[in-house]
Amino acid sequence: MIGIVAKLQIAEGKNDEFEQVGKDLMAKVKANEPGCLTYQLYRSQSDPQSYIFMEQYSDDEALKAHGQTEYFKAAGPKMAGCLAGKPEIERYDIVE
Amino acid sequence: MIGIVAKLQIAEGKNDEFEQVGKDLMAKVKANEPGCLTYQLYRSQSDPQSYIFMEQYSDDEALKAHGQTEYFKAAGPKMAGCLAGKPEIERYDIVE
Repeated sequence: MIGIVAKLQIAEGKNDEFEQVGKDLMAKVKANEPGCLTYQLYRSQSDPQSYIFMEQYSDDEALKAHGQTEYFKAAGPKMAGCLAGKPEIERYDIVE
Repeated sequence: MIGIVAKLQIAEGKNDEFEQVGKDLMAKVKANEPGCLTYQLYRSQSDPQSYIFMEQYSDDEALKAHGQTEYFKAAGPKMAGCLAGKPEIERYDIVE
């Protein structure tokens, strides 16, 4: 299993727009990617401009498939327009 | 739903000891906490000394209950003995 935490800093005034893009993306991932076990947007309790996507994939193939979907590629530029800084994306291997 | 990412930097040579404490803790959480929906230890692909606990709770009550369990309290000092730095713990509210 692969874990990802993608941290995104959102510009002031862009929260609603960003959250809508995130909700649409989550719905599409849940409907189409059985190998994506978790794909959840969260907003920081300490910084309302800071968000993460918390993600879990069954394996590398599932992660690769996610990155190649049309809806993921389409969401990228929409999210980029809401960012206040560079995303921080960390990949993790499961410990079990 | 509440999300938590607890980032832990582990001292060189302490990985095995730390992972065993983490595995024991995960097993106890899974067996005893229906309100804890995700409690998974991950190791960074870019830094083998960096780990996270990826956590999801149904609500604040479930998170509070987790922190009050005997096994969580007992794991704290065991993990502390493996750390190379201060843990970074971030709390998040679900976006849905």
